[in-house]
Amino acid sequence: MKRIAILGSTGSIGRSALAVVDAHADRLEVVGLAAGGNVALFAEQVERVRPRIVALATSDALDRLAVQSVFKPAASAAGSEGLVAVATHPDVELVLCATSGTAALEAVLAAIEDGKTIALANKEVLVMAGAIVTEAARRRGVPLLPVDSEHNAIHQCLHGRPASEVSRLILTASGGPFRGQPSDALHEVGPEDALRHPTWQMGPKITIDSATLMNKGLEVIEARWLFGVPGSRIDVVIHPQSVVHSMVELIDGSVIAQLGVTDMRLPIQYAFSYPDRWKAALPSLDLATLGRLEFQLPDHASFPCLRLAYRALEDEAGLPVVLNAANEVAVAAFLDGQLGFTGIPRLIEATMNAYRPEPARTLQEVRRIDAWAREYSQERASRLE
Amino acid sequence: MKRIAILGSTGSIGRSALAVVDAHADRLEVVGLAAGGNVALFAEQVERVRPRIVALATSDALDRLAVQSVFKPAASAAGSEGLVAVATHPDVELVLCATSGTAALEAVLAAIEDGKTIALANKEVLVMAGAIVTEAARRRGVPLLPVDSEHNAIHQCLHGRPASEVSRLILTASGGPFRGQPSDALHEVGPEDALRHPTWQMGPKITIDSATLMNKGLEVIEARWLFGVPGSRIDVVIHPQSVVHSMVELIDGSVIAQLGVTDMRLPIQYAFSYPDRWKAALPSLDLATLGRLEFQLPDHASFPCLRLAYRALEDEAGLPVVLNAANEVAVAAFLDGQLGFTGIPRLIEATMNAYRPEPARTLQEVRRIDAWAREYSQERASRLE
Repeated sequence: MKRIAILGSTGSIGRSALAVVDAHADRLEVVGLAAGGNVALFAEQVERVRPRIVALATSDALDRLAVQSVFKPAASAAGSEGLVAVATHPDVELVLCATSGTAALEAVLAAIEDGKTIALANKEVLVMAGAIVTEAARRRGVPLLPVDSEHNAIHQCLHGRPASEVSRLILTASGGPFRGQPSDALHEVGPEDALRHPTWQMGPKITIDSATLMNKGLEVIEARWLFGVPGSRIDVVIHPQSVVHSMVELIDGSVIAQLGVTDMRLPIQYAFSYPDRWKAALPSLDLATLGRLEFQLPDHASFPCLRLAYRALEDEAGLPVVLNAANEVAVAAFLDGQLGFTGIPRLIEATMNAYRPEPARTLQEVRRIDAWAREYSQERASRLE
Repeated sequence: MKRIAILGSTGSIGRSALAVVDAHADRLEVVGLAAGGNVALFAEQVERVRPRIVALATSDALDRLAVQSVFKPAASAAGSEGLVAVATHPDVELVLCATSGTAALEAVLAAIEDGKTIALANKEVLVMAGAIVTEAARRRGVPLLPVDSEHNAIHQCLHGRPASEVSRLILTASGGPFRGQPSDALHEVGPEDALRHPTWQMGPKITIDSATLMNKGLEVIEARWLFGVPGSRIDVVIHPQSVVHSMVELIDGSVIAQLGVTDMRLPIQYAFSYPDRWKAALPSLDLATLGRLEFQLPDHASFPCLRLAYRALEDEAGLPVVLNAANEVAVAAFLDGQLGFTGIPRLIEATMNAYRPEPARTLQEVRRIDAWAREYSQERASRLE
């Protein structure tokens, strides 16, 4: 029995994770559950898995949970402290971090200090604090298992191969809904167009990030930390079918790829079962029926966000924090109708240009850079319109 | 320094193997070389690598070598004994078996008994004596490293994963020069048409086997022995670009694939370097330039040989021997103009139908079945015309 905690249980990844738990009830036990403010769904989940500890964003949300759920967990807590309490509960062996944004950063670090295995479905944790988190995991000997389908694929392709045998990581990208569009055609794009992703069903923030290719840029930064490979040896290839989830090129020229159906239960289950592998009830990948897999280079003119992410890796410490914060502000402004689609990379680049390098060795320093970048980009966004 | 012997050094694989040795002269030393009757090329090779022991098919060929080569190896021998002497030379650590046909069967078994690592580029050894060879390798704890690009790919994809995690092996096939042709169109095919293979440059026998898909059938049988997976869990998918060299489906639905440029130096070097991996000077695989990879089901109506190979696995001991022998006779008769292209599967099937199961537990028993099948199919080929 593997005892797990799920941070972000009401989100898309969290719900898929609970489906994996349902399918492997003989192997997985949910000890802790944490979510934001979707109390109605959270109450259902709590009734179903009967965790020992729960957390919600606010104590008001916890009060509503107490009304809606008959089952009473032994412990509960709110906010950032709640996330830490769930992630460090003594019975927990593995923490799935599936929150969005940076709320879970402290909780992940606390869980690492406690020696818990981390299954990471949250990009911001590594984009903001990659050096801090990976160094802590290395020092504590804690596995960091990627749940993002691309990094999960690379983890499967590496399969313990030493870094000395790896020449390149090749991340695949669906290309998003605007693949093939010239840059001028993207001025008129509205939120409803950008929210239509061709292959994956995901939350709004990550769907917009897919449309701008920033999602892939954040993944390049993630990959740099997860696998210790510099940005210059991480490539992105557009692959509209999203069947090849990513690849690793080895020093002899051989390329190992991981393929699969586009279902997040696959990488989540991999992280839960690791180092074992469990049978899954998903349909087989049928390449003959799919017929063809296409590959092309990313169009940097239409999608400047990818280049901005590579540039952020030139100052690994602070610039990815700025990129990430400015991107969150830009996406929110775009979804609010405050900023056009092509304004997203412009706002991020302007914020990166305005950033004066600062130390980013501690979480506080990272948070300070993050706060500056948010404030700057917010102010600048209002001026862009 | 890894000390190797190459059986079949003047063939296509043997020449590529020597190119790998040239590229890694600091890591590989050729102790033994064996070939058939191409004395001119063999003499050049002997001058270049200065092996301690050599073998040729006949003592007459050895005499001609003595005239043509200034360098005199310390030992030489002819025929099947010569192959055994090279393969079991006390200084040899790894034997690359790249002969065609069944001549090297005794040499491979003798090398296994001596504890040498086997790099296997010869299909017939496993098709004829898969149970005997793999059981001997298992008993002696000797690695059997596949050099065929498909099996080499599967070896790379497995990368030590346990059999309990594997649900299917998926061998890719280029489909040969007649892919997409209806069965009636294949009556008129002549040897010159069939010798034009779209992606790989190989000898005539294996090129015809690619055109009939018997090559893939033999590979299914090989895979059954190399990886201990029954035929029912070995699939074949047509993939005209030959970029994905083969795949492994794991029990959770994840598929691991090995991709690469179509150059036999890659799998040969892998076998030589295993368990390490060496840098190679081959061009990188460029998927964006390739653009697309296609996959389709094999057409069993046009290419009945594949089905015959699966059928042969139903009686694993004797029937693959019959299939292989009848196929060799049929391909030779086709190349001689004695048999039409569609006569190849008909002759093999007729021979399989005429076979009465016999024990095939020893090399003698296997040789007896082989001799029967050759005689029967030869006689029958003359009657087909």
